[in-house]
Amino acid sequence: MIRQLGTALFGDPFLVMNTIGLVAFALVGSAKAIREEFDLFGVVVVGLATAFAGGLTRDLLVNRVPLVLQSPIEISLGLLGSGLAVALSMGLRAPDEHGITVISDAIGLAAFATTGAIVATQAGVSAFGVVAIATINAVGGGAFADILLDRSPFILFDDFYASCAVLGGCSYWFVETLGVIDGGAAIACAAVTVSVRVVAVTRGWYIPTVENLKSIAK
Amino acid sequence: MIRQLGTALFGDPFLVMNTIGLVAFALVGSAKAIREEFDLFGVVVVGLATAFAGGLTRDLLVNRVPLVLQSPIEISLGLLGSGLAVALSMGLRAPDEHGITVISDAIGLAAFATTGAIVATQAGVSAFGVVAIATINAVGGGAFADILLDRSPFILFDDFYASCAVLGGCSYWFVETLGVIDGGAAIACAAVTVSVRVVAVTRGWYIPTVENLKSIAK
Amino acid sequence: MIRQLGTALFGDPFLVMNTIGLVAFALVGSAKAIREEFDLFGVVVVGLATAFAGGLTRDLLVNRVPLVLQSPIEISLGLLGSGLAVALSMGLRAPDEHGITVISDAIGLAAFATTGAIVATQAGVSAFGVVAIATINAVGGGAFADILLDRSPFILFDDFYASCAVLGGCSYWFVETLGVIDGGAAIACAAVTVSVRVVAVTRGWYIPTVENLKSIAK
Repeated sequence: MIRQLGTALFGDPFLVMNTIGLVAFALVGSAKAIREEFDLFGVVVVGLATAFAGGLTRDLLVNRVPLVLQSPIEISLGLLGSGLAVALSMGLRAPDEHGITVISDAIGLAAFATTGAIVATQAGVSAFGVVAIATINAVGGGAFADILLDRSPFILFDDFYASCAVLGGCSYWFVETLGVIDGGAAIACAAVTVSVRVVAVTRGWYIPTVENLKSIAK
Repeated sequence: MIRQLGTALFGDPFLVMNTIGLVAFALVGSAKAIREEFDLFGVVVVGLATAFAGGLTRDLLVNRVPLVLQSPIEISLGLLGSGLAVALSMGLRAPDEHGITVISDAIGLAAFATTGAIVATQAGVSAFGVVAIATINAVGGGAFADILLDRSPFILFDDFYASCAVLGGCSYWFVETLGVIDGGAAIACAAVTVSVRVVAVTRGWYIPTVENLKSIAK
Repeated sequence: MIRQLGTALFGDPFLVMNTIGLVAFALVGSAKAIREEFDLFGVVVVGLATAFAGGLTRDLLVNRVPLVLQSPIEISLGLLGSGLAVALSMGLRAPDEHGITVISDAIGLAAFATTGAIVATQAGVSAFGVVAIATINAVGGGAFADILLDRSPFILFDDFYASCAVLGGCSYWFVETLGVIDGGAAIACAAVTVSVRVVAVTRGWYIPTVENLKSIAK
């Protein structure tokens, strides 16, 4: 109901979020590859990997043929993001660190975590499975891109990024289990993910290391 | 028959081995991530990846939804291992090099190789498929963790580790093909893997490189 | 018709290409691992990964149990390639840079791109899906081997290699869509891939980086 109302007022907000996310993720991935002086083929591959590897892994985990190989629209959005990265890199220093990109990336994070949670719930996995697949869908692409760039995935030691998707996935599971409103779980997941991410960027949140804990314990 | 007898005497020994293995693998993976100064999220992810990525790859290869996403017990064991790594790292220097950890890891290696061989045999793959899936199930998690830590998988150049699972997988296939005793293949696989591993650690076995072969040839 | 004629005259040319490719890919992968001083287990694993990881990923993407785990012949060809790499490395400096290896590798690239396009078309994916799976089948193994060797996949910044498979995949889709001759798409894909690759090696083709584009724009 709430969702239909949203659709009537703004169009399908989820579709809009997913579109923004695909373009932003591909742009961020391609910008990283440009900085590493990959050739144009590599720049496109890393961009597409950032945008699609998370959803692709999700589809493999629930045992279905990846959607990105079936729909021509999604891939066009990825290519648009890569193209933007190339075009902007001719002028800007780091188009992936621009404020608009950071916000678009947060929107994508929320859209992808939500899709992951929906698909996982349909596949009938455990509560952990829902949170895990939501997180993998949201951050798996960026993590895979880092492996292609020969570094550790930044989500494992830097920033407060994947944790937003973990919290979003937990919210999804919680609201879904309560089961009060149709579409409420998706809204909760998207809202929690994007708002926690925006706060985390603004406040400079990070997750402590064991070294940090040791210093506190002393 | 032999297996039922074992279960009657000691409980299901395989379940015990699998439990020990999951905790030990997660502990070893998390301890590596702590040493690389990953944050707590990264520490848990690398621990869970070490414990579950092998079994998850096995399930993808035989085309089924990974068990770890369906059972809440297995994931709790992984989280326990990661928690132990964090707790022990506050006190111990390297909890993953402790004697108990090394033995537990060998038990896990055997349990995972055996599970892999059983699932592969059920899926009807070739003899190579059985040995490959047993090995991937046993060492795939550790190899994937090394990739997350931005290094080559240690199994490819160091130690006599994956080879124990290869020998275990071969034993499984051999006893299964002979087909004399029910459950005999699983016992053979587990026994060969764990005992070869213990001997390899004690004697400091390693596999030669081509450079080593050249020096011998001279 | 054309294909049957070819089979009658030369045996199945595609089978011959695939055989050459598997041996060449395993040889190239193992030679790289030997140079990194991996042990013999690592040398074999990297060789087999180079030869089979592309086809394995293709099978996962279209949701079937990987063929390499079912057929004993393919794996023997991979082991032959790894064995050749070890044997030749005792004498030659870099058996993977030998002219015969480079040609055999180009033939394998063409055979694997073609297999990928055929399987993708059967699975009913989009045009992008056909090109993507053809390319992944052709270069995924080499890319995965580079990750095991702890480097960025060379196809992302060096040489004109993956692009040959991309062009081959496009040719397949184009001829298949025209639909004039039975087997024509496979012949077009293989012919385009191998001939573009040979020209690229001879002429020293490469793909520009964004830096290159900037200098041209100035």
